[in-house]
Amino acid sequence: MSSFIADNACFAPLFADAEIEEQFAAEALMARCLAFELELTRALRDQDVVEKTMADAALQAMETFKPDASLLGAGSLNDGLPVPAYVRALKAHVGVELSPAVHVGATSQDLLDTALVLGLREVSSILANRLERVINLLDQVQARFGDRPMMARTRMQAALPITVSDRLDTWLLPLRSHLESLPFVRQQIEQLQFGGAVGNRNALNDRGDVVAAQIANAFGLGNPAKAWHAMREPVVTYGDFLSKVTGSLGKMGMDICLMAQQGVSEIALKGSGSSSAMPHKQNPVLAEMLVTFARFNAVQVPALHHAMVHEQERSGMAWTLEWMVLPLMATTTGKALLHATSLLDQIEAIGDEPV
Amino acid sequence: MSSFIADNACFAPLFADAEIEEQFAAEALMARCLAFELELTRALRDQDVVEKTMADAALQAMETFKPDASLLGAGSLNDGLPVPAYVRALKAHVGVELSPAVHVGATSQDLLDTALVLGLREVSSILANRLERVINLLDQVQARFGDRPMMARTRMQAALPITVSDRLDTWLLPLRSHLESLPFVRQQIEQLQFGGAVGNRNALNDRGDVVAAQIANAFGLGNPAKAWHAMREPVVTYGDFLSKVTGSLGKMGMDICLMAQQGVSEIALKGSGSSSAMPHKQNPVLAEMLVTFARFNAVQVPALHHAMVHEQERSGMAWTLEWMVLPLMATTTGKALLHATSLLDQIEAIGDEPV
Amino acid sequence: MSSFIADNACFAPLFADAEIEEQFAAEALMARCLAFELELTRALRDQDVVEKTMADAALQAMETFKPDASLLGAGSLNDGLPVPAYVRALKAHVGVELSPAVHVGATSQDLLDTALVLGLREVSSILANRLERVINLLDQVQARFGDRPMMARTRMQAALPITVSDRLDTWLLPLRSHLESLPFVRQQIEQLQFGGAVGNRNALNDRGDVVAAQIANAFGLGNPAKAWHAMREPVVTYGDFLSKVTGSLGKMGMDICLMAQQGVSEIALKGSGSSSAMPHKQNPVLAEMLVTFARFNAVQVPALHHAMVHEQERSGMAWTLEWMVLPLMATTTGKALLHATSLLDQIEAIGDEPV
Amino acid sequence: MSSFIADNACFAPLFADAEIEEQFAAEALMARCLAFELELTRALRDQDVVEKTMADAALQAMETFKPDASLLGAGSLNDGLPVPAYVRALKAHVGVELSPAVHVGATSQDLLDTALVLGLREVSSILANRLERVINLLDQVQARFGDRPMMARTRMQAALPITVSDRLDTWLLPLRSHLESLPFVRQQIEQLQFGGAVGNRNALNDRGDVVAAQIANAFGLGNPAKAWHAMREPVVTYGDFLSKVTGSLGKMGMDICLMAQQGVSEIALKGSGSSSAMPHKQNPVLAEMLVTFARFNAVQVPALHHAMVHEQERSGMAWTLEWMVLPLMATTTGKALLHATSLLDQIEAIGDEPV
Repeated sequence: MSSFIADNACFAPLFADAEIEEQFAAEALMARCLAFELELTRALRDQDVVEKTMADAALQAMETFKPDASLLGAGSLNDGLPVPAYVRALKAHVGVELSPAVHVGATSQDLLDTALVLGLREVSSILANRLERVINLLDQVQARFGDRPMMARTRMQAALPITVSDRLDTWLLPLRSHLESLPFVRQQIEQLQFGGAVGNRNALNDRGDVVAAQIANAFGLGNPAKAWHAMREPVVTYGDFLSKVTGSLGKMGMDICLMAQQGVSEIALKGSGSSSAMPHKQNPVLAEMLVTFARFNAVQVPALHHAMVHEQERSGMAWTLEWMVLPLMATTTGKALLHATSLLDQIEAIGDEPV
Repeated sequence: MSSFIADNACFAPLFADAEIEEQFAAEALMARCLAFELELTRALRDQDVVEKTMADAALQAMETFKPDASLLGAGSLNDGLPVPAYVRALKAHVGVELSPAVHVGATSQDLLDTALVLGLREVSSILANRLERVINLLDQVQARFGDRPMMARTRMQAALPITVSDRLDTWLLPLRSHLESLPFVRQQIEQLQFGGAVGNRNALNDRGDVVAAQIANAFGLGNPAKAWHAMREPVVTYGDFLSKVTGSLGKMGMDICLMAQQGVSEIALKGSGSSSAMPHKQNPVLAEMLVTFARFNAVQVPALHHAMVHEQERSGMAWTLEWMVLPLMATTTGKALLHATSLLDQIEAIGDEPV
Repeated sequence: MSSFIADNACFAPLFADAEIEEQFAAEALMARCLAFELELTRALRDQDVVEKTMADAALQAMETFKPDASLLGAGSLNDGLPVPAYVRALKAHVGVELSPAVHVGATSQDLLDTALVLGLREVSSILANRLERVINLLDQVQARFGDRPMMARTRMQAALPITVSDRLDTWLLPLRSHLESLPFVRQQIEQLQFGGAVGNRNALNDRGDVVAAQIANAFGLGNPAKAWHAMREPVVTYGDFLSKVTGSLGKMGMDICLMAQQGVSEIALKGSGSSSAMPHKQNPVLAEMLVTFARFNAVQVPALHHAMVHEQERSGMAWTLEWMVLPLMATTTGKALLHATSLLDQIEAIGDEPV
Repeated sequence: MSSFIADNACFAPLFADAEIEEQFAAEALMARCLAFELELTRALRDQDVVEKTMADAALQAMETFKPDASLLGAGSLNDGLPVPAYVRALKAHVGVELSPAVHVGATSQDLLDTALVLGLREVSSILANRLERVINLLDQVQARFGDRPMMARTRMQAALPITVSDRLDTWLLPLRSHLESLPFVRQQIEQLQFGGAVGNRNALNDRGDVVAAQIANAFGLGNPAKAWHAMREPVVTYGDFLSKVTGSLGKMGMDICLMAQQGVSEIALKGSGSSSAMPHKQNPVLAEMLVTFARFNAVQVPALHHAMVHEQERSGMAWTLEWMVLPLMATTTGKALLHATSLLDQIEAIGDEPV
């Protein structure tokens, strides 16, 4: 439980997104850390850093490792992050004889950033699917109502007649563009983090690069020439992308709120929200939420930009700021897409009656 | 569970603050909504809006009301907030005959904003206590080390000798100032919300103001002449206050990080964080977190300023943005004060050896 | 000329505010720096730091000092701020014999922050006058149209009838509240800055405090016990205040935009903007600008909150961030009040016709 | 003159960037508007919308048009932007008989957005050149000092030895990446804006698309299928790019500030800034400015993200927010690159003496 509104059961269905949240949960993190350590030990073995018998025995032992999340949490309070406690527990689990095959050449940031990237890969797939769904629904609304006339409005004033299709294009085209740019964004962020204590892979001498290459290959991640511990622009690009998705949905939400006004009445929504004091009133709740989510993400974006000022080889200040903000932005984006789907499903008519 | 980092057990002790979080939990919200409804029905009775026998019977029935939070959550998805579902459930609980004594003249925003204000009152008390504790610890550090010499640094360059006391004053005085300004901030925010459907108390005709006065008095809240549904500056002021507290702590954190550098070595901290790759290293983890928290809150602040653009009598867009941000800011501030306490406890020495 | 939109003559009347801008111009800065140096030398004389004859001669010489702004600019590029070049020029102006009576015990930050504070004092007076004017105009609108009926709108949906007065109160009361809180804000920021090189007034030994007291008294500024070089919360409070003023005006602007929509038609504005393509169209330009300015200031606010993380005795990073943002916020606030005045003057009718 | 710090002659050389500012000046805007109108009339002629003789006469007359910027400014105050006044003046200049050949099928947003895009094209070229120069200088620093040892620092604590090259890579690689991504960013933003009053090119019936194609071709701009009046993500992408450049430079600046500390002494800079109170002190002024500029741009970024919530066919609120922020971000980025060049030129040594 936290104080984030999605954690409050009275509000959760309006803000929570279980599928996205799962990617940032302790379980997912620990599973990804173990996956990292396994691939690392395999690479250490295959690239002749650790003797095969020892590596195989260690791998077998590691498979059954189940860390205690609360112990890792206690470690975080002391160390600023859970990895030292995690590695201590993992080494204790495999035993002192096999521990030389574990975590060799890696550092905390290698685990956490790689785990992040693996999580964001899942998030990206989820978002891509949802973007496609919203786009499909918009295509359907186009097909049903696109030919209808409606009044263009500039500066909130009636201007000249357009078609519903003209308005819908301003919702649809940016979403298509986001979907098309996602692979480029993914390519930047889906990069193995592997640099060791100070980011230069020196602990493994000349084996650093081949070990990194094998791990990257195993995960299907890119393998940058250098660890990106202190070069955070892919994280910024990812956050910018999330906010651009919610920004485009926010434009759609704002338009729908304005279209749903009595006196304008350019859209009919079924089943929209009720009021405790005025049961007859129909509130375009999900359209409003799209605006809220657009502004929420717009507010968060600078956190990631500030975190580019990542001093020296690793910043405890800048990196942790990313942790606080990026998962919230991802969830907000995921939920905005879900709300957009529901909202488009609610559209019963849009535009004026055909003449 | 949400995607906020405080919800991840591997990190929670670094970010979570149970005492603050409790104030924003579903249980606290539902308890405060019930308290509101009880005081409302009492006021309706005492101010001759609802007949006494009916009101008393309703009050007795209401006492045992235990709403189902997940049902309220489902209501939120439909209505944009949990209150309509809450009121339906409450009325069903007391029965159709007594329901005319329930929620008369009130609207969703009256419940949620009053509940918020009651929660912030608790938060303010917690923060005041913690501020006092940090101030006391700083006074102790002053007493122990204030006379020692140290080098002033401007633009990160050694300047001229000062005393430790000079540096400590820049940490201490702003915190004292925040503690002194808190009552003024509290006075602005600790105001009953009671306006009815459109904020003008008209549903109760001429009894609106006396009903409001009685409820405000019962809660020990201020009773503004008008409902503040669409006038949100006290919320902004509260958020600004939170960020100023973390900003001042962030300055202290940044200074301590800089003082703890090898080669500068102006502070000795015990038990600071370890590293998975370099067990000998001493990391000023909590000092870094103070900087992170200062930047996190600074990033959030504009959400509340944007939410002042609260269109018409109630905005679903602007109000929900407050919900997403203010609890996170409160928790971050609370946790920053806890970390500051721990950090000051870690100080073993500060400044140069007395000559 | 800069790239700020107010500098572009094609747009200036929409964004520029000469009266506020003047307070941040080179001329005003240099005049205030000279005023500071004069009061300092007077205080050095009166408090027996500098011999009377020398001080009087220096004062006489200083009166005629006219620095070359472009020379100070060149100094800024080298030193990060214009004061070292300013002081060199001033000392050269008075001559080597009198220069021991000049700038003794002061540092760059003393001049620039005191000059800032003196400028903000003027800004505050201007804003207070304009706030009063807007409040008066709103009172007049209240008197003319307050009794008329209109439809309350919540979540952008027609709710229940209210009066125009109910809506106007949500514009008016926050502005009254801002005007009432301004003296408290002013008291915090209108503080002499005087600390010397490292903020502790030590260069003047035991005369530091009395010199400070005399200068503060001469300027009618507060005299804090310590220089506030590295304690920036009053600047934050001032910026928060500015953004709260524009936030309240932004709410009014958004409401007016919504009221001016065809189909809603709750307000009649004379002389509103035209369109290059649709000459018949009436655009609520100034109302829109109020929303723009509210969002602009909301966006800027975190700069000042981040600048609280002001490392050590003086930060070149944090302090300069204030310089970039605070003048823009002040101008935007001033201009918003001017636009609000014009906009309220444009109101020909508001609400529905009386029945 | 505005209140932006770059306009204050005492500070200008620290903040102003004439080459970038020029792109946002009234002169550049008016020149680009005329270029647009000329290409439009040519296209109207070539695509058989306007009769050739009339078009040629109009073109000849238009060539000598010199609008009065202050008149356009007055128009802005009334209309929210200078284009209606500009078009009235242009039509008056060519005379009533030729004016049917002028501005046909275009709207204010077509001119201003196309002018913006043409200005950003120049800005992009300037930034690309400066990025290359900074990269070259970093390559030279690499060549001179890359092999030297230095201490890696994580969480501001000495960690393990690395080489200077390792540190320099964290400055250099992101800049290379920005330079490589710039063509992709440019492709998105360098798009003709041409939609007419409500964005659908309908005023020209079936000639709208060919007219647009010819204008786009003449300018060497992309020709999107639809006007992007209300689809602003390319502007957001551009602003994100600017902030990522300053973010990367800010990391370099912060590192240099930390390296320049006495006691750390990992860098020697010549000619760094002086202090009015301590003439012996060497201040890493330009390094600090890089951090300031990174934070300034990070603060501005959300303005553009918020402006995606661009209601209906044209928003006066959202669009004007872009105007206020994007030029400042461009200038700040340009100036950061200039400061980075000077700063790298100041480096006399970096890292420890080779052993």
